[in-house]
Amino acid sequence: MASRITVLFKRNAIGCALTTLLSKRSKCSITQLPLNLCSVRTRGLHVTKNVGRTIQINPMEPCYVRGEHTLRVPMTLFQGNRERLLNRLRKNSDVPTKGAFVMLQGGVDVPFNDTDIDWPFRQESYFQWCFGVEEPGCYGCIDITSGTSILFFPRLPAEYAVWQGKLHSLEDFKKRYAVDETYYTDQIAQVLSDKQAALLLTLYGRNTDSGNTAREAVFDGIGQFQVDNNLLFPEIAECRVIKSSQEIEVLRYVVKISSEAHKAVMRAVKPGLMEYQGESAFLHYAYSVGGCRNVSYTCICGSGHNASILHYGHAGVPNNRLIQDGDICLFDMGANYCGYAADITCSFPANGKFTEDQKMIYNAVLDACNAVLQSVKPGVSWVDMHLLSNKVLLTSLKKGGLLIGDVDDMIKAGLGEVFQPHGLGHLMGLDVHDVGGYLPGCPERPVAPGIRKLRTARTLSAGMVLTVEPGCYFIDCLLDAALANPEQSKFIVPERLRDFRGWGGVRIEDDILITESGVENMTCVPRTVEEIEAWMAVGRDQIKLPQERRRTVE
Amino acid sequence: MASRITVLFKRNAIGCALTTLLSKRSKCSITQLPLNLCSVRTRGLHVTKNVGRTIQINPMEPCYVRGEHTLRVPMTLFQGNRERLLNRLRKNSDVPTKGAFVMLQGGVDVPFNDTDIDWPFRQESYFQWCFGVEEPGCYGCIDITSGTSILFFPRLPAEYAVWQGKLHSLEDFKKRYAVDETYYTDQIAQVLSDKQAALLLTLYGRNTDSGNTAREAVFDGIGQFQVDNNLLFPEIAECRVIKSSQEIEVLRYVVKISSEAHKAVMRAVKPGLMEYQGESAFLHYAYSVGGCRNVSYTCICGSGHNASILHYGHAGVPNNRLIQDGDICLFDMGANYCGYAADITCSFPANGKFTEDQKMIYNAVLDACNAVLQSVKPGVSWVDMHLLSNKVLLTSLKKGGLLIGDVDDMIKAGLGEVFQPHGLGHLMGLDVHDVGGYLPGCPERPVAPGIRKLRTARTLSAGMVLTVEPGCYFIDCLLDAALANPEQSKFIVPERLRDFRGWGGVRIEDDILITESGVENMTCVPRTVEEIEAWMAVGRDQIKLPQERRRTVE
Repeated sequence: MASRITVLFKRNAIGCALTTLLSKRSKCSITQLPLNLCSVRTRGLHVTKNVGRTIQINPMEPCYVRGEHTLRVPMTLFQGNRERLLNRLRKNSDVPTKGAFVMLQGGVDVPFNDTDIDWPFRQESYFQWCFGVEEPGCYGCIDITSGTSILFFPRLPAEYAVWQGKLHSLEDFKKRYAVDETYYTDQIAQVLSDKQAALLLTLYGRNTDSGNTAREAVFDGIGQFQVDNNLLFPEIAECRVIKSSQEIEVLRYVVKISSEAHKAVMRAVKPGLMEYQGESAFLHYAYSVGGCRNVSYTCICGSGHNASILHYGHAGVPNNRLIQDGDICLFDMGANYCGYAADITCSFPANGKFTEDQKMIYNAVLDACNAVLQSVKPGVSWVDMHLLSNKVLLTSLKKGGLLIGDVDDMIKAGLGEVFQPHGLGHLMGLDVHDVGGYLPGCPERPVAPGIRKLRTARTLSAGMVLTVEPGCYFIDCLLDAALANPEQSKFIVPERLRDFRGWGGVRIEDDILITESGVENMTCVPRTVEEIEAWMAVGRDQIKLPQERRRTVE
Repeated sequence: MASRITVLFKRNAIGCALTTLLSKRSKCSITQLPLNLCSVRTRGLHVTKNVGRTIQINPMEPCYVRGEHTLRVPMTLFQGNRERLLNRLRKNSDVPTKGAFVMLQGGVDVPFNDTDIDWPFRQESYFQWCFGVEEPGCYGCIDITSGTSILFFPRLPAEYAVWQGKLHSLEDFKKRYAVDETYYTDQIAQVLSDKQAALLLTLYGRNTDSGNTAREAVFDGIGQFQVDNNLLFPEIAECRVIKSSQEIEVLRYVVKISSEAHKAVMRAVKPGLMEYQGESAFLHYAYSVGGCRNVSYTCICGSGHNASILHYGHAGVPNNRLIQDGDICLFDMGANYCGYAADITCSFPANGKFTEDQKMIYNAVLDACNAVLQSVKPGVSWVDMHLLSNKVLLTSLKKGGLLIGDVDDMIKAGLGEVFQPHGLGHLMGLDVHDVGGYLPGCPERPVAPGIRKLRTARTLSAGMVLTVEPGCYFIDCLLDAALANPEQSKFIVPERLRDFRGWGGVRIEDDILITESGVENMTCVPRTVEEIEAWMAVGRDQIKLPQERRRTVE
């Protein structure tokens, strides 16, 4: 082990403290694979490794699993989530001690316009958090007093078996999802009435990232019950902010798979590749190796100038540029497993070797990232971390000749937002931009330039999972506005800035867990310039463009 | 060429007329690649082959293209569609000769529940057919008298450029989509008013596959115009039924890519693979090689018993079974390019070699498929093709010892629906189950068992594109019902049927174009038992399971 660290350290030309990286960047242990510069294995992952064994998993086993090579997520995870929610609700004096039920409606199939095709179903996140149910059209409730958990499933006509396969019985579903009782959705009112439900707590509240509201449960006969739609939302959202040890296990897994997928992509990129071919390689690795059918957001695969477009990859600009020699690539992609998200960005040179300017910008962002990783711990304000990151970045840009003047003055003048027009990071969980950023009782959204884009201003606690994603982008409209603003332009060296017009951008995004003692970086990808160049060098002369595959199947 | 055909013919043990296959099954020419048994190249494809050349495509070029190795779809395709629609509308005496406009609303971004993530955008099909616009939130209209085409785009705030990239000007969009005029969506009422629009034809009608209705255009100020929502729907749906030569070009391309992807998957399947790993391989090939970001429907990758579940692969049964030695696999997957769908099913043995029973069922379905391919042409009724297919299938099952008695009597008794509880196929185009199956003036949906599931009962015309997809499945609930029904059970040999309980099913699905003289089979995959075994034999001992890849990136 020690010798391997030494080897790594020698290769690390910029000499940034690798030992710090090992302790702070990532709580990972180095594997013994000699060729793999960034070989890491996240602690605590319990993936059964049975590659090649033909073990059939019982589909009624109470767990989420996608084959023996993937993570087995027991339904106790969701039982634990429900327990945590009940503990909070029972402490809330506004919740009656008897007859109160949590009442949630699960996600439904969403048709593609007027056709008979649906979008591929993914469960609604609050419902997933409580029950882990894979099917659409369900309801779930919990008796707050007794803790009894109840799921309601659509009563499907018998002939559906021809199209959908064997229709599971209520007994099947009870075992599969490890709840106390199961019924059909047409029985909800009767069941609640039999249980003398006096108050239903439904979900109603605003998602502070989207401005949309959560779907409030509605069912035939709800009119006969008293409903409160205020109490539940802040309590369940707060529960989702702090991850349980079982949730952390899943997040470690999906971040690990996403890290590996990024690494596979980096070894497939060369000039001549279309950006979307990198996206496709990521999706394929995450699904076929990690069992992740979904990603949590549309892949962002920007090259060259596109690397400066924060949400590149959408329908209007669908990762459809040809990657050129000399380009910087910014690939922001994260898989989804059992509903849980990863969100990782790697920035690297298309041809595998950084230019001097690319190195300068890259290291500016990496230093900002490392400064945050070395400072985050319980009790620290996320706003302070953002400002720290900005300060380190601007200091490096000054060293790189792009800026002049006092860095604190630059921040006051809003220079941070010129080069990084987004927040340092966000809570992450079942939603990639997870809930709970601005709950009642938490610090409100700041209004000052530089920090107003933050998705949370909270003080950190153990069990929070966040992204740390500083970036530096050269965005024409922001640069033009800064140059036209004397308060900002006085810090800018225009002749040096010209070198970076159309250059793109760099983002480095890690997924971290706040621990009692500090931080665990769950992301395991090559991060230093040296690590990236060494990783990308392997097999570089043998990379084939995907279109060359046509010859073998035509 | 001739010698190669001879070689193929010799290998073809069942002796089904390969020459017929070559002329009827597929209008494809055999390539000279010696190792590739089913090497075919669809006629008329004009894909620029510049593998490895680094040509940047101008994103404002008036075409849809995903790199030089993919098909370039010029905007003249959509101009041609609009022309065809106008020609029909101008012949309709209910449409005023002046002041009437077609008014369509494009698809919108669909958020994933309350989050700030959207489903990956795909354009609404009628809007796509008229305009080929890639962005969400647009409107389009056509002056029926002058033919002037107008697109309206959302007016985005300038700061969106930071997140979405350079905001295109109206002039950019006019060039990109080759329309006559472009405006912002907040200008619709004013523009129409300036043009003295007297009547707007909006889209309102029922999709006969889903029962859902098309989205009728609504915009601020629509109240000041007279609106007719009856005239447009049947006319535009009928236009969509008959494909133009440019549309056929795109369909040939997406079917070709999907064929290749199926072939790549067949060479990756072996016992020990998870079904979804086949899905992932298909998606990756279609995207990275063919530029197809979307599929037209959720991939159906059933193995063993799951091969009998018609719409297997949905959220409740997400292709998550481990493929076993001896399994039959039924993989139904189709890519989507520029909105246009492919829909292909391949059935094959998991280990690459058919058992005798697998051969018997497979050939029963293949014979049914070939009988249809040899009979379809303009003027033929689709219902007759379905019945022909059923008859050939049941005749083969009788030969195979599963059935006894007179085949015509079996069909009268509804045996066809016991073994193939779905229609022979469906129209295909921008929707995988394309519109126009039961338009006014066309034959109504049959009510008799065996044919009541048909998605169309039309008489075929040149320019129609359909799937031909006979199948034979062993579905417990249907078999139990048939055995319990004396009218049906008298034809069944129960002791032979027992061999096939839990066995799964076979479907063979080709995508065909009705031509003036008969049919063009656009699908190019190995189809005979011998072709499949020979194709799957190549490299079989070197197949690696995807999970073995982890070792190279961990």
